Parts: sequence; C-alpha cells; structure tokens
Amino acid sequence: MKRRIYLRMRSWEEALEALFSRALPSRYDKRETIPFKEAIGRVTAEPIFARLSSPHYHSAAMDGIALAAPVTFGAAEDRPKQLRVGKEAFFVDTGDPLPPGTDAVVMIEEVHQVDAQTVEIMRAASPWQHVRMVGEDLVASELILPQGHRITPTDLGALLAGGVLEVPVKGRPRVAVIPTGDEVVSPEEALSRGPRVGEIVDVNSTILGGLIEEAGGECVPYPIVRDDPQALKDAVRSASREGCDIILVNAGSSAGSEDYTPDIVEELGEVLVHGVSIMPGKPTLLGVVDERPILGVPGYTVSAVISCDLFLKPLMAAMLGIAAPKREGITVVPTRRLPSKLGAEEFVRVRVGRVGERIMATPLPRGAGTITSLTRADAIIRIPRLTEGIEEGGATEAELLVGKDAIDNTVVIIGSHDLALDLLASWVTRGDPSLRLSSNHVGSLEGIIALKKGYAHMAGSHLLDPATGEYNLPYIHKYLAGVEVRVIHLAYRQQGFILLPGNPRGITGLSDLVRDGVRFINRQRGSGTRVLLDHLLEREGIDPAQINGYQGEEFTHLGVAVAIESGRADVGLGIYGAAKALGLDFVPVEQERYDLIIPHEHFDDPQIQKVIGVLRSEEFQAEIEGLGGYDTSRMGEEMAV
Amino acid sequence: MKRRIYLRMRSWEEALEALFSRALPSRYDKRETIPFKEAIGRVTAEPIFARLSSPHYHSAAMDGIALAAPVTFGAAEDRPKQLRVGKEAFFVDTGDPLPPGTDAVVMIEEVHQVDAQTVEIMRAASPWQHVRMVGEDLVASELILPQGHRITPTDLGALLAGGVLEVPVKGRPRVAVIPTGDEVVSPEEALSRGPRVGEIVDVNSTILGGLIEEAGGECVPYPIVRDDPQALKDAVRSASREGCDIILVNAGSSAGSEDYTPDIVEELGEVLVHGVSIMPGKPTLLGVVDERPILGVPGYTVSAVISCDLFLKPLMAAMLGIAAPKREGITVVPTRRLPSKLGAEEFVRVRVGRVGERIMATPLPRGAGTITSLTRADAIIRIPRLTEGIEEGGATEAELLVGKDAIDNTVVIIGSHDLALDLLASWVTRGDPSLRLSSNHVGSLEGIIALKKGYAHMAGSHLLDPATGEYNLPYIHKYLAGVEVRVIHLAYRQQGFILLPGNPRGITGLSDLVRDGVRFINRQRGSGTRVLLDHLLEREGIDPAQINGYQGEEFTHLGVAVAIESGRADVGLGIYGAAKALGLDFVPVEQERYDLIIPHEHFDDPQIQKVIGVLRSEEFQAEIEGLGGYDTSRMGEEMAV
Repeated sequence: MKRRIYLRMRSWEEALEALFSRALPSRYDKRETIPFKEAIGRVTAEPIFARLSSPHYHSAAMDGIALAAPVTFGAAEDRPKQLRVGKEAFFVDTGDPLPPGTDAVVMIEEVHQVDAQTVEIMRAASPWQHVRMVGEDLVASELILPQGHRITPTDLGALLAGGVLEVPVKGRPRVAVIPTGDEVVSPEEALSRGPRVGEIVDVNSTILGGLIEEAGGECVPYPIVRDDPQALKDAVRSASREGCDIILVNAGSSAGSEDYTPDIVEELGEVLVHGVSIMPGKPTLLGVVDERPILGVPGYTVSAVISCDLFLKPLMAAMLGIAAPKREGITVVPTRRLPSKLGAEEFVRVRVGRVGERIMATPLPRGAGTITSLTRADAIIRIPRLTEGIEEGGATEAELLVGKDAIDNTVVIIGSHDLALDLLASWVTRGDPSLRLSSNHVGSLEGIIALKKGYAHMAGSHLLDPATGEYNLPYIHKYLAGVEVRVIHLAYRQQGFILLPGNPRGITGLSDLVRDGVRFINRQRGSGTRVLLDHLLEREGIDPAQINGYQGEEFTHLGVAVAIESGRADVGLGIYGAAKALGLDFVPVEQERYDLIIPHEHFDDPQIQKVIGVLRSEEFQAEIEGLGGYDTSRMGEEMAV
Repeated sequence: MKRRIYLRMRSWEEALEALFSRALPSRYDKRETIPFKEAIGRVTAEPIFARLSSPHYHSAAMDGIALAAPVTFGAAEDRPKQLRVGKEAFFVDTGDPLPPGTDAVVMIEEVHQVDAQTVEIMRAASPWQHVRMVGEDLVASELILPQGHRITPTDLGALLAGGVLEVPVKGRPRVAVIPTGDEVVSPEEALSRGPRVGEIVDVNSTILGGLIEEAGGECVPYPIVRDDPQALKDAVRSASREGCDIILVNAGSSAGSEDYTPDIVEELGEVLVHGVSIMPGKPTLLGVVDERPILGVPGYTVSAVISCDLFLKPLMAAMLGIAAPKREGITVVPTRRLPSKLGAEEFVRVRVGRVGERIMATPLPRGAGTITSLTRADAIIRIPRLTEGIEEGGATEAELLVGKDAIDNTVVIIGSHDLALDLLASWVTRGDPSLRLSSNHVGSLEGIIALKKGYAHMAGSHLLDPATGEYNLPYIHKYLAGVEVRVIHLAYRQQGFILLPGNPRGITGLSDLVRDGVRFINRQRGSGTRVLLDHLLEREGIDPAQINGYQGEEFTHLGVAVAIESGRADVGLGIYGAAKALGLDFVPVEQERYDLIIPHEHFDDPQIQKVIGVLRSEEFQAEIEGLGGYDTSRMGEEMAV
C-alpha cells in the first residue's frame, strides 16, 4: 500500500508566499472590452477617462427663466425689472439648454408673469446662477474610474455620463474544477435516484463553482475523474490546453493510497507546497503546471472551503488586480472552551449574538465534513498554531461572515434542543426579517448555567427534579440564585421510546432496555431527557449499568432517532417529533414540561417580546400542535417562579 | 403655466411608513421552485428541511482499517493483537462505507501490516471511533435553511447534502423602470452619434436596473416616454397589466409644468406622499396603482439613487421577506464645515481615510447631478433635518459604502489639483491593490492648513512666495510652524494661458487680459495658480479689477479648460495637461515647482513610502513626462526644508 509523506508542512502564510513568489498572478493579463450593460461586477483593466463632458451643454438647473445676468442688474423689491419673454427672458425647465446669449436662470418661484409677453423680477441675478455648467460633473479627459476597480451600477452611470459605452475590463480568470474519486457521483445522478451506500455526492463542485463566480472568475466544471492517475493527468492537461488560468483538483491531494494529485503535479510541473498546518484543510497542495497555478483542494467540504478562502481567493484577486477580500474583525466571547491541537491553525465556526455588552460566540461542530457548520456560522475564530485553545469566557478575535447589525438583532438561546425551536426561529424571522433566533443545543442544565454566566438571552429547559416531581423551578432556584428570571412556558411534550418501524424488538417498557441484545442509545449528561431517564430507571429500580449502550451519548433528539434508523441502536428516549421525522415508531413514556427561562434584565427587550409574541399566536400554536406529541394549551404563558 | 404644490412634505421615515401602512409588501407572495444551479442569491420561500441524512451511510472518517471494536479489546503496546484481513479487518479509505459488522476505524498510521493476510494493532479501538455516522452533519427532516434566507454557494452545498435538488424561492419582484422626458435619449443612441445640445442621456435607467438586480429583483425596462400625460398613463397601465410588482417612474414627479406623474397616479390610484424632506431627493412621489406601489423618482441621478436607497430597497426587502440592507456606521471627522438647510435631511457624500487616530471625511460636490460624488464616495454623512450643519473637525456619524479595511489603507492627500495625482493614484493601486490614494482638491494653501490640523497624510502645493521667489518653503515655515515636515518633489510644471484652438483672441501676454471683450476665468483664492497670477499681475503693474472675469472662481485646471472650451471664457491660467486634454491651445507663462509636503510622523509609514516609491520609478516618470508640460528630472527627490 503506497503512502506518501507530506513535504515540510507550511503555515498558510508561507504557503501563500510560496505560490505568489512564482509571480503567476502578476503575469495574468487577460482583458477584453465589453458593452456597458455587461460590466457590473467586472474589474476595470485600465484607468477609464471621460470622453465627453457632463453636462455636455450649459443647462438650466431649475425650472424658471433664462436670461443674461446683466439685464437684471438694479432689480429690487421696490424696483422690479420687467423683461420681454422670448427676447430677454426665456422659460426653461430643468435640464433645458440655455438659450444663446443667456448665462443665468431665475427660479420660477421668483418670476412674476405680468402678461403673455412680460415677466417681472425683484432681484438681480448673478452670472451662472442655477446653471449646470458644461463639465460640472465630469470634464472630458477626467478620470472616471481607476484601474482595478470593481464596477457598480452607479459607476456604470458615471461611465455613460462620460460617454463610455464600452468598458475595458480584466478577463475573468477561468478556473477548472476537476472533481475526483471513484465514489463521487454528481448530485443530479445521485439525488434523482437516491444515493447508494458508498457514494459520495459531489457537493463541492457546486460550492467551488459558486465561490469562483463570486470572486469574479469563471468556473469551468470538469466531469468527475475516477481514481486513475492517467485519467487525472489527462484532465489536468486538458484544463491547461483549454486555457484555464487556475486548476483545482478536488480531493486526492492527501497522503492516502489513492491520492494521485501530488505525483501528477510533480510529473507535469512542480509541487510548491504539500500539506498546510491548518485545520481543517491540511491536505492542501499548491503547485505549478504549465506556468499556471494548480491547487489540490481537500475533499471534506469545510476543508475545501477554507483552503479556497486562504489560497484561491487571494490568487484570483491578484490576477484581477484587486484587493483580496478581507472580513471584518470583531471581538467575541466563547461560551465554551475551545481546545485546539498545537501546530495547526484552527478555523472554528461559531454562531454569534450580542448579549448585553458582550458578543457571545457558540462553537459549531468542528468536523471537516459538517457543511452545516459553515451554513450556520456567523463568524470564524482562528486559533493560532502555537496555542492550545481559547478559554471559555475570555475575549478573542473573530472574522464576521454576516453583517454587524445581524449580531445586534440576534436572540441567543442556549439549552435543550426542541424541534419547535427551529420553527420558532423561522416564525420570528418571518415576522421581522431583521431578527434572528440563534439556538444552541447543549442540554437543559448547560443552558441554565449559560444564563448564570450571562451568555444567553434565554435557556430552553425541561429538567425534572426527581425529589419534588417539579420541572425546572428547583434547578432555577439552585443554579440561578441571585439572577432574577422570568419563565415562559413553551409546551408540554411527550417523551417516549423511539423504535424501528413495527417495533421489531417488542419494547414497551423500561424493563425491556436491559434485555439481552437490546442496544440503547443515550442522551448526554445534563440533558433533560437524560435526567428523566435516570429518574425513571431509579423509580423502577433498574441499574443503568445493565443497559447496553447507556454510555453512548447523542446531543439531540434527532441524533437519537438517526442512530436507531441507521441500525446503530434499537431504542432511545426522545420526543415524538424526532421519531415522526424519520418515520420511526414511538411509544409514549412520560409527558414533560418545556420552558424558556429568561433573565429579567432581557425580558422587556423588544426582541424578546417579539419571540414571546410568536409563542402566543394561535397560528404558531396550531403549527406546533400539528407536529404531534405537543400540548400547546399553555404555550406563551408566564409561569410562577 | 400649470404648477402643482407638494402635498405636506414628509420626513422619509413618515413617507416609508405611509407606504408600508398599505401592507403592499406583505401581500407579495410570488414564489417558484428552481433547480439548485440557479439558486445562488435567491431567497428561500419557506424553511427547507433535509430529505436525506448526510452522511447517508456510516463511513470511514480516516484511511485505515475498519473493524468491530470488541475484537480490539485488550490490545496494547506489549500485547499487540493480530487481525485477519478481510475477515476481522478491512482496509478502507476516507469516505468508504463501513463493511457489515464493523463499527470503528483504526488509522492507517496505527496499523502494522504483518503479511498480506494479517495486520497488527497496539491499542484498543472504541466503538464508532473515526467513523462519520449517518446524519452526523444533517438528519433527514432537519432544518437546512430558514425561510427568508439569501442562498450562498455553501448553502447550496448543504441543500445538496440534504438531498434537495430543487429549491422553493421567493419570486424576484419585477420592477418596471419607466424613463420619461422629451429630452431624454438612450445611451446607445446618444453616445453612438454624440449627444446633441439639450439631450439628456438616460443614465438613470441603467443605474436603477443595476440596483434592482442587486437587491434581488428583476428590472423590466420600458422605452422612454415623452412628456405626454396619456403616454405616461399608458406606460403605467401596461406595467401594471404585465404583472410588474413595483412601478418606478423616473422624473416627472416634481412640481414643474411637465411633471405629470402626480396627476396620473392620482387618476389611476392614490398619491400617498408627494415631496420628502430630504436633500437630494425631495421630488419623490410614493403612491399606489392597482394595489402595487408606484414610485416617482427624481431625475437628478444622485436624487434618484438616494430615493431608491430609502424607499425602493426596503420595499423590495420586505417583499422578499429579508432584512433591509443596512450600512455599517462609522465615526468620522469632516475636514470642512458642512452647512445644511434646516428642514431637510441632507445626504452628503464624502471621501474617507484614516489619518492617525481619526477617520477624516472630505465632502464631495453636493449637487444632485454630480454622479461622480457617488462613484467617488466612501461614505455618506446624514445631516439631520433640524441641524444647520456639522462643524469642521467635530466627530459625526457616517454610513460606509466601502469596506472598513479600505479606510485604513488610504493615503489622504489634500491640496492643489494636478493631473499627475490621478495617475499616481492609479499606479499606487496597481502596485498594491489594497492601497488607495485619495486626493481632495482644495488648493495649495488649504492643503497646508489641512496638514496643520492633522487632516491629511500629505499636501500637494505649488505656492510661490512673491517676496523671495521661492516655492512652498516660506508657506511651510509660516503655516506649519511646530509641525515637522518632509518635502518630496513631484515635478516642475508649465503654467500658461489656456485658449481656444488657434488663439482667436490673439492672447500672448498678461496685458491682453485687460483688453476689451476678453473674458478671463480665474482660480479660487488660496490656489497656487491664483497666487502665481496675482504675483505676475503685480509684477507687471496690472490692476486685477480691470480683468473681466477675475471674480469667477474655478477649483481645478480642468474646470478652467472647460470654461474656455464651452465658451464661458476666452482665457485662463492653468497647466499644459488641462489644455491638451480638451484639445485647447496653450501659451507658456511660467514654470513652477510642485511638491508633496508630508508630516514627519507619517513619512515612514509603509503606505507613504509606497507612494514615494512610485514617484521614484522611471516608468512613472516617463508616463508623466509623456503628458507634456512637466519636467520630472527631480521627481521623488527629498527637498531641503
């Protein structure tokens, strides 16, 4: 089994430097002249100068009468001056050319029409008053747009005003995207018939194509190449022959047995960098083939996107002669510790929202394969190479992926997961598109502790106190001592066993969990569901150690459901909605109370009140009721604390 | 002559409220389902849930061997465990499905191959280690994108991962753009043959179309409508009949004799607002025709753009169910007083750059017709209705039109205008696309005073001291006492008379300026050219009062040239380049020295050094020399202070 080793691993700065030192982008000189209608978003290839002056004639800047200023000299309130229409005074509308011999306009409001032939004015006019003079906006030969400027709609207006109908622009760099892998199948093929086990749907080509177009390039998609060195070589050669300016090979640049990219780049050109000390994104390859850059981009989507961010975008910007896009920096406070491996710069995707004075950042799943960690991310925290992580609660820098105002308009909820929260978020935004509900699933207890630390606007909780049989309140009194809170009821909901359709194991009660061959899937410690399970087990005198799978922890109801659906487990405790979503069976076990806990200091915020308003709307209640497994009769009610 | 009066003038907030109170946007319900390839930039019409889990099978997260975790129990460094390949251990690459019966992957680095049939491991594996489990990223039924979300390339990847090939999106609002006016001509027609006097080139339709597309709408362009109420009525009706969701009538909404829009809207529907207390943009009309919004947008380009910013964009955002775009705020310091009329909120376009700790904002021309004030603007300062202006040097808020990093990467030069500065700016950006040179033309003396106040990184000056015949230094000593500065020479340049081709008035010397019928055009006080003129007049004993036009002030060399070319004057003093640019004649009068004055505190900034580096490059010097009228032999030299 052949395995390569990475060349000396580089930091991404060194890697980028190695690529740029070959001066490939500065040699890029494609340009074209295009009609103005196609020019928005394109980059000027040279400074563009006005061919015409604008205005191109002296024109009235107001509705009124045009006249030669000297004929008005001496006019005053008590000595009005009469002028003959068509001889000394000419009615003009805004934009009309000045009649010959005139050099000023008197506003219509200051003109008194005596009769059809005569007007009267009460004030002298100064030369060129209320006149837009030739070249007032642009003088022929004047610079309209500098070189290296990305053209906006308004720029286009200025070009037209300066008489420029055709625009010299940089050619869009053509970027070949070559997907590789025996197991890779196009989305159209895989999804129209349903993907088979072992097939990887090629989502990366679509993402890379979109990123390339956004960056001002043209994506040249290639068919999927099998894991065959000769086929990959042919594809790379063909991309070069067809004039692609950058070649991306997606996956196959790692060090595995079927990673042919390094060898092929070495054979056809030169490998500059193999392996970059970033996470995700390590198996990135940078090289040169036929004097054009070739990038081996990792297969995991998050790795691919980060690799493109660090290498493809600066490369394209340099080719176009524009500044590489830079994200805005912001100081955030992580709600959890972010441990990180020494030696690699890690890119942690986070959700972000302002809570009081601080902008809190909750990390999303860190796996390189979790696309949703990109789509849900509001910002990225970079953990430097020589750092072992970032502490919870400490301030750190992040790069924003969304607008700054979005952060101020975010209601942050940390706590237990419930499907109704996703729908609630959707309803909140439908009611006020500028408002976002960002929910972070860490379990009920963690949510309450997050409130204590001032990390969130609300916590979702369904924690049973076994001693009293009461929900949430005992925990509030214990963990939120000193924090004044209000409690808004979300719903009563059914917890029960999630089972394969038809309940093949015949599980009907807790005692079945300890039966031989029954595999259970558990929820994480601190989650309300886990507390409920432990309480029920204790009540029935069942020893958790007897349950096969009690140690395995899932973080969401859906995670439990999917473990069962995919055959990893036979049964788990969860809500009806999760079972229903995957077409699984459900055996009710217990009804529980799910509340939203809101610190008093945030309760009257208009944003929080909007969220509560949705809970109190009958339409929303009906939708949740329709999911099944919920009793919404008291939804939105304030509960005694 | 019929004139309308505006309805009660509203603030823009009231006006927007009046429009929204008709609930027109919330009734917008167009939607469509489109293939994923077309979905980037579109807005989701409903929450989109995953149809498939991703991954859709348990797969290896690493290259290595798949096995059932229990077979490894007990393995240790000193007790390696041997496994049979193909029976207990299966080689897998990242992404491969787990073979039946296996639930863990051991990394290839930890596998020792004993022989073809046997591998050895030194450590126990835990269940599900290095396995990407079904649904790890997305669980079927899970929310992928909320409603009202504008789709990015990465979102598209997540949709595909969740099995979504077709995307339910909001229909793009169709916006009719109806240009009106007898004098309005399409750019294609006017520019291909050259625009005639009195013709207005329709640049607005192009700009509005671009803004509409950027905002997620579809622009439906209409042919230019003559100033005829019936024709306009027909166009509005046709836009309504053809299903346009918003109707824009460009110009004709003012109160002039040919402003038919108000009457027509009143006849076909209802006028909600006529006249908004903003500047520019006052003659905006908002109304309803056939239950769809109609906007009368002013004719001056800046007014039209601001009116669209305030009314069209929020309207379209509301129709799409997304947050209205909001610009980032920033605190700036105006370099000049910004007087403003009480009673109207004024939108002042400014150029912005960081100088030391402060972000300085230099106002651009404030006329509603100066498109270049939009294309050159980095930010907009809003002067509230009830304020008479903003003081020079005081902090005020502005809305950014460019990225924040652009502001930090701007070299601010205030002072005299020279054509070479435009080229210098272009060369600076070509060398470093992230660096901008922002030059603001206020004349030499104002530039020096701006340095004294800490408003700029450098001042461009060519001020002659009549007493000593020396350039710049006496002024530096007088006005910059206490400020340590360095002086970098730009060029010696020829000042002379700018004249119509063939010099029809036969002007060869200063004495010709006082001849009967000779009209002079002057430069503003404080400009080096004005100082030079006054010095020359004094030397020759000529009384300025004798010169016809001595009072008229232009702010740039090109302004002088255009005054002559357009017949406003016969002669002015200026540089050769300005005459050449407009094909005018030039009679040399005096060579003068143009320097860049740079406070010592900024001199070593890498950005300033890059600018100086361009001045010292032979290529740049050759280009300036090629303009004619310059002696660049000492360009870039540091001059004694």
